[in-house]
Amino acid sequence: MNLRKIVQESDTVPGRVFDIAVLVLIAISIVSLSVETLPDLSPRLKQALSSLEIGITVLFTVEYGLRIATAPNKWKYIFSFYGAIDLIAIAPFYLFLGIDLYAIRAFRLFRVFRILKLTRYGRAMDHFGKAILEIREEATIFILATMLLLYLSAAGIYYFEHDAQPDAFQSIFHSMWWAVATLTTVGYGDVYPVTAGGKAFTFVILMCGLGIVAVPAGLISSALSKVRRDEEH
Amino acid sequence: MNLRKIVQESDTVPGRVFDIAVLVLIAISIVSLSVETLPDLSPRLKQALSSLEIGITVLFTVEYGLRIATAPNKWKYIFSFYGAIDLIAIAPFYLFLGIDLYAIRAFRLFRVFRILKLTRYGRAMDHFGKAILEIREEATIFILATMLLLYLSAAGIYYFEHDAQPDAFQSIFHSMWWAVATLTTVGYGDVYPVTAGGKAFTFVILMCGLGIVAVPAGLISSALSKVRRDEEH
Amino acid sequence: MNLRKIVQESDTVPGRVFDIAVLVLIAISIVSLSVETLPDLSPRLKQALSSLEIGITVLFTVEYGLRIATAPNKWKYIFSFYGAIDLIAIAPFYLFLGIDLYAIRAFRLFRVFRILKLTRYGRAMDHFGKAILEIREEATIFILATMLLLYLSAAGIYYFEHDAQPDAFQSIFHSMWWAVATLTTVGYGDVYPVTAGGKAFTFVILMCGLGIVAVPAGLISSALSKVRRDEEH
Amino acid sequence: MNLRKIVQESDTVPGRVFDIAVLVLIAISIVSLSVETLPDLSPRLKQALSSLEIGITVLFTVEYGLRIATAPNKWKYIFSFYGAIDLIAIAPFYLFLGIDLYAIRAFRLFRVFRILKLTRYGRAMDHFGKAILEIREEATIFILATMLLLYLSAAGIYYFEHDAQPDAFQSIFHSMWWAVATLTTVGYGDVYPVTAGGKAFTFVILMCGLGIVAVPAGLISSALSKVRRDEEH
Repeated sequence: MNLRKIVQESDTVPGRVFDIAVLVLIAISIVSLSVETLPDLSPRLKQALSSLEIGITVLFTVEYGLRIATAPNKWKYIFSFYGAIDLIAIAPFYLFLGIDLYAIRAFRLFRVFRILKLTRYGRAMDHFGKAILEIREEATIFILATMLLLYLSAAGIYYFEHDAQPDAFQSIFHSMWWAVATLTTVGYGDVYPVTAGGKAFTFVILMCGLGIVAVPAGLISSALSKVRRDEEH
Repeated sequence: MNLRKIVQESDTVPGRVFDIAVLVLIAISIVSLSVETLPDLSPRLKQALSSLEIGITVLFTVEYGLRIATAPNKWKYIFSFYGAIDLIAIAPFYLFLGIDLYAIRAFRLFRVFRILKLTRYGRAMDHFGKAILEIREEATIFILATMLLLYLSAAGIYYFEHDAQPDAFQSIFHSMWWAVATLTTVGYGDVYPVTAGGKAFTFVILMCGLGIVAVPAGLISSALSKVRRDEEH
Repeated sequence: MNLRKIVQESDTVPGRVFDIAVLVLIAISIVSLSVETLPDLSPRLKQALSSLEIGITVLFTVEYGLRIATAPNKWKYIFSFYGAIDLIAIAPFYLFLGIDLYAIRAFRLFRVFRILKLTRYGRAMDHFGKAILEIREEATIFILATMLLLYLSAAGIYYFEHDAQPDAFQSIFHSMWWAVATLTTVGYGDVYPVTAGGKAFTFVILMCGLGIVAVPAGLISSALSKVRRDEEH
Repeated sequence: MNLRKIVQESDTVPGRVFDIAVLVLIAISIVSLSVETLPDLSPRLKQALSSLEIGITVLFTVEYGLRIATAPNKWKYIFSFYGAIDLIAIAPFYLFLGIDLYAIRAFRLFRVFRILKLTRYGRAMDHFGKAILEIREEATIFILATMLLLYLSAAGIYYFEHDAQPDAFQSIFHSMWWAVATLTTVGYGDVYPVTAGGKAFTFVILMCGLGIVAVPAGLISSALSKVRRDEEH
């Protein structure tokens, strides 16, 4: 069936046109979403954006129908990652008519990745996929260790700074915000230790925290090296 | 003996249940510790959390007893890393009845890692262990060089900024706080150079400081690559 | 023809002198550009800098002419990367006599790289070139994923913080500034979330954002490793 | 000669004692230097620190003499890196009696590295040395490219922000401070762009700037991997 080729593949001219049309729709949808949040829009522009949103959603619904109709295995598609993303891109509109959930509309961006899968970027995507598989367990341990370090940092700084800055470090939960901003080295500067003990503690925590950037870089690097080496043989 | 299998291993159903029960206890203990630090708790909730803490400590004590009783080599367990962590999780409660050391209770989190050792994460933990062993000496030199750079940064910025900002850069010890926040690129913004000399010095120091993130990433990456390569052969 | 050797190559003494003369001219041009931006310059210094600029541009024009004259393939040179840079270094002066475009004059710095190509740094430049080629597609996907994450961060933080801080998070476009400063871990501290939801969202985003530093480090590392390995065989 | 063994080597008991004595002296010297900078010292403590400094310098002078006396090649030692450091550790005291140069005294810390060379850390030091040699040229290009990016950032932000913030971005030289703090992701928050153009420019610059952390990490990682691989064969 020809429709299947157009919707599911991208090695024919109509297939590419379909893919590009979907990409353009996603782009329009995202720009429209962003413009809607601008302050002081004229009522006419608001009306136009609202109509545009309805149009895009209808087109996405048609596309979703086509994808189900042409899928070799309909249920597999519906419950796949891309099937879920395609549904999330349209479902909120029908479920909460009127109440528009901006945040969920932003998820439409994920649809971009499907297009990549079909093109020459497939091999590179495959590299990332294999690398993630290779370090799945190390990454889990790393994330666990990071959470642990974050919690210990929050508990520690609460202990040192609570008396000096009872507002910024009200509880371990409040101290967690400091721990996140510090260990990722963002350092907004809205909260920081002022006592000598708190500063010394921060020093120790930051030395451990260097690993928070270094370990994932090392993991990804060694995994990608392995993937490339495996490819050569 | 069956009890040993339950406590020490996790490949039987009761063994897994025991492990999960300990994990849940740790989680409850940590949540309870965090909630206790919240301001404006009702006296009743405080009372409840206090009772919960007693209950958890009793259960951890029973678990500690079981681990000693079922350990193949009792003294080895008691003086092992995990034995020490298990003791630290309960000892403060008995030693300082009434005076509760929050910070030490947070160390209970380390107990989470024992569970990992027994499961399929064992191999990944092993990778990290071998990688650390591989770069032990390089890491020591790196830490030493970092300390040196931190000290030289603090001494240098003290020299440049002391006259312009006598409060923030009171002494080399005070300047150390700036050095830590700057070289780790946290940059809270509570202290920063204002003189042209101090800014130029910061520029030079930061160029060296790029290595502070790059060297550990490189070390971990090369070590993990080696561990994977060794595994292949 | 001897002039060709002097202009195009650098393995003879006059060739090296020519290269160094161009480097010195670039350096003078850059220093002059920087000094011109200093406030409170005396009219005489301004006049001198202006004359210097005319002199340098004339010399660069002569050089550009020489390069065209001695190029083995004139059109190829004119439309090459270095040909374009050489033209950009002089064209604005003639096109907008009087209106000086500082920003464009700064591009003259790129001319420095041509000199590198000819010297012993050629092999190292080659390493970087091969490494970029190796990871071209992975890098494209990474940049796309980064843009996506930036957009989702901006949309998310707008959702959480718009009501609490309508000024800082006026729209998704305004929130993008926060997303950039946060995900790159710069963290100026001019905008940051204040609500519990916004802080929790920032935590999640920053955990993903660790990859923004780790993935390029891993990509570059694995590509350079491959380039070195290929060289050995 | 036995004295040579004690001073130059560290595989005998007296040799180790000599090394440790020097390490202790360096440590005392650094602590004393730091304490001297503390505000509100009593005149007696100041006097004591001053005497301590004289004592340490005399001991370092004796050591320097011993090292010259026992060196197999006296001139080679005097003009070596460690010979220079040893001289810098004492010379300022004799040259500027009374005027104490704190900053130079901090350089004594470098002497710590000599001790490392002799011990089991020698092999790890060797790894770093070989890795640096391996990437010497790539590192030079990287540093050059970083300088270039810094300059272009400073020139660009001056162009965008000079009119809006004439104080913070007075000239390209002043803008350089912003460029350094931003590209290294320190982000103190004392200067940041406020115009839309400046923010967009910062976005572009930061995307390039990710390489400033990623490239050295990748270089070091690939070089250390190579050094390890060479060692295996």
